[in-house]
Amino acid sequence: MHEQRFSYQQLFNFTKSIFTKIGCSKEHAEIATKTLLSADLRGIDSHGVARLSGYIRLWEVKRINAVPEIKVIHETLSTAVIDGDSGLGLVVAPFAMQVAIKKAKNAGTGWVSVQNSNHFGIAAYHAMMALQYDMIGIAMTNASPLVAPTFSIDRMLGTNPICVVAPAGNEPAFVADLATTTAANGKLEILQRKNMVAPFGWIQDKDGNPSTDPNEIKKGGALLPLGGDKEHGSHKGYALGAVVDIFSALLSGANYAPWVPPFPVYVPMPSEQPGKGIGHFFGAMRIDAFRPADEFKKHMDKWIGGFRSAKTIPGEEKVLIPGDPEREMEYERSKNGIPLIEAVVNDLKGLGEKFSVSF
Amino acid sequence: MHEQRFSYQQLFNFTKSIFTKIGCSKEHAEIATKTLLSADLRGIDSHGVARLSGYIRLWEVKRINAVPEIKVIHETLSTAVIDGDSGLGLVVAPFAMQVAIKKAKNAGTGWVSVQNSNHFGIAAYHAMMALQYDMIGIAMTNASPLVAPTFSIDRMLGTNPICVVAPAGNEPAFVADLATTTAANGKLEILQRKNMVAPFGWIQDKDGNPSTDPNEIKKGGALLPLGGDKEHGSHKGYALGAVVDIFSALLSGANYAPWVPPFPVYVPMPSEQPGKGIGHFFGAMRIDAFRPADEFKKHMDKWIGGFRSAKTIPGEEKVLIPGDPEREMEYERSKNGIPLIEAVVNDLKGLGEKFSVSF
Repeated sequence: MHEQRFSYQQLFNFTKSIFTKIGCSKEHAEIATKTLLSADLRGIDSHGVARLSGYIRLWEVKRINAVPEIKVIHETLSTAVIDGDSGLGLVVAPFAMQVAIKKAKNAGTGWVSVQNSNHFGIAAYHAMMALQYDMIGIAMTNASPLVAPTFSIDRMLGTNPICVVAPAGNEPAFVADLATTTAANGKLEILQRKNMVAPFGWIQDKDGNPSTDPNEIKKGGALLPLGGDKEHGSHKGYALGAVVDIFSALLSGANYAPWVPPFPVYVPMPSEQPGKGIGHFFGAMRIDAFRPADEFKKHMDKWIGGFRSAKTIPGEEKVLIPGDPEREMEYERSKNGIPLIEAVVNDLKGLGEKFSVSF
Repeated sequence: MHEQRFSYQQLFNFTKSIFTKIGCSKEHAEIATKTLLSADLRGIDSHGVARLSGYIRLWEVKRINAVPEIKVIHETLSTAVIDGDSGLGLVVAPFAMQVAIKKAKNAGTGWVSVQNSNHFGIAAYHAMMALQYDMIGIAMTNASPLVAPTFSIDRMLGTNPICVVAPAGNEPAFVADLATTTAANGKLEILQRKNMVAPFGWIQDKDGNPSTDPNEIKKGGALLPLGGDKEHGSHKGYALGAVVDIFSALLSGANYAPWVPPFPVYVPMPSEQPGKGIGHFFGAMRIDAFRPADEFKKHMDKWIGGFRSAKTIPGEEKVLIPGDPEREMEYERSKNGIPLIEAVVNDLKGLGEKFSVSF
């Protein structure tokens, strides 16, 4: 597949200009761009600039509000509910995470559930905001239904990711960011482009039979919860996805389960809307609300060191620490630029022409 | 396999007497018994009265303190750290969960990390304490190393369960309680007794090769994280188990990773102890710290109803809601008694003779 590399700055300037063109304030355009491109830097290509035209199409059909009034609609010492006013999730989510951090400064922890938002990019970007304050950071979001719970044919949940990050001392931070499915949708898209089959346990067809065809989702099939089938614990992946839905949407008043609005504008909206927009959930826990941060970080270093020096199975060089691959990717791409496939380059060129922004 | 049924009351009286005999106060003996037997009622036989003699053996070697002074050693508005004073986890955990609930009453949420504890029975018992207060309840614990992270031969994590419960309205509560492995160790024990093989994806042998022999753990093999192998997302199960370890032990000052003390007294203690005892983590979130509880519960009913009416794959009658099987089991066993296999009956008889308590 033909790829071209672009510098972070080049993509940043372009993306910020596009967000500005649709009416975002300078501040919002910058935040949205930084959030979006953090996915490209970290190698989560499905959640980065490849999605820019998708966000713009949502704005065109008035499902994204470029000038949202994001506000706290309910709060206690350690909690808040935020109405995203149909804003870009890329902007709403960092706002909400800041509220969680502020609550944690005062109450030890802060927990924020968000309604009326849109796709927020990668969860890790938001959760990692906590690290600089010596806090544990948590981010999750629901998403439109692509996942069939155990024994179901119907798609009832999104890929509903969970991210938990914790600071370390000399070691880099622990960053676990995972869709609650066997494989994220982005991995299927790669197989589709390469005309390859998926392993069993990732997807089922429209009748609920196991399938290896990465195109099943387009034909009424479904992604499978982490575990794949009942025998391998898919009821656990399903339960975790359900927890994300409850925290993100049932607590906040967003849409949930099969009623979460889809990201692509061409997918019909669900039959009803029991809430507003999509939902997110954020948490921040001050380490020193439990024990001195230096002590914690010293033990995190020992924890990480233990795993790094674990004996590996034949053919593998090392046991990875959650966050290792993305951090290494970020280092490499910051230096060498971000590779984009031809389809994405063309998509961005088209977007540039439409808004008179040169790419 | 020969089984005998015993009434809850019969097992309660016996277990309480045994705990009293080792020196527990009347109050502690009752709490420990109630916690332990909740596993038998809910069908988690591996965590119930079958473990009673194991707890007693830990007391005999002075690793369990029957008269602990359980205390809060650090706190903020929404957090606390508790020192379990080597007490029974069955007693320490409900104490800690009460602290979390009390914090939540005041600050909206409460988060408690526990050091210097022992095995706490089933996580669901503790998390479910939150339900009567219209709170979401969370419980997790680390455990001695049986699980090899992705690409590792070494056992670095316990089965580290996560439990999250949420109240509903007319529907029963949502109760997700899951080990972060493909299959809990209890399931392997059943296969061992029945002389059956395990599916691939549950275990590996001492050299890191996939295996179907349920006896591998005794031969230096390991349980696998939820997902089974890298291709099916085992790095996600590993990350979730790691999060449980960090919340339960790194935040509290308990032992972690391969250094968590084993439950069976015959298993050698780890080479070092970077903390005290084993660690737990508890959370309570007041629903009305986010939105009115009635509103939340009405939407939980709709959420649950949606899943119950989802179309099923061929051969399956219904899509289960997390907590359904255990609740149905509790109903059945409360009525018909708790079945115990002969080995457990004999074990309890022996214990009774040792402490002059009739069984």
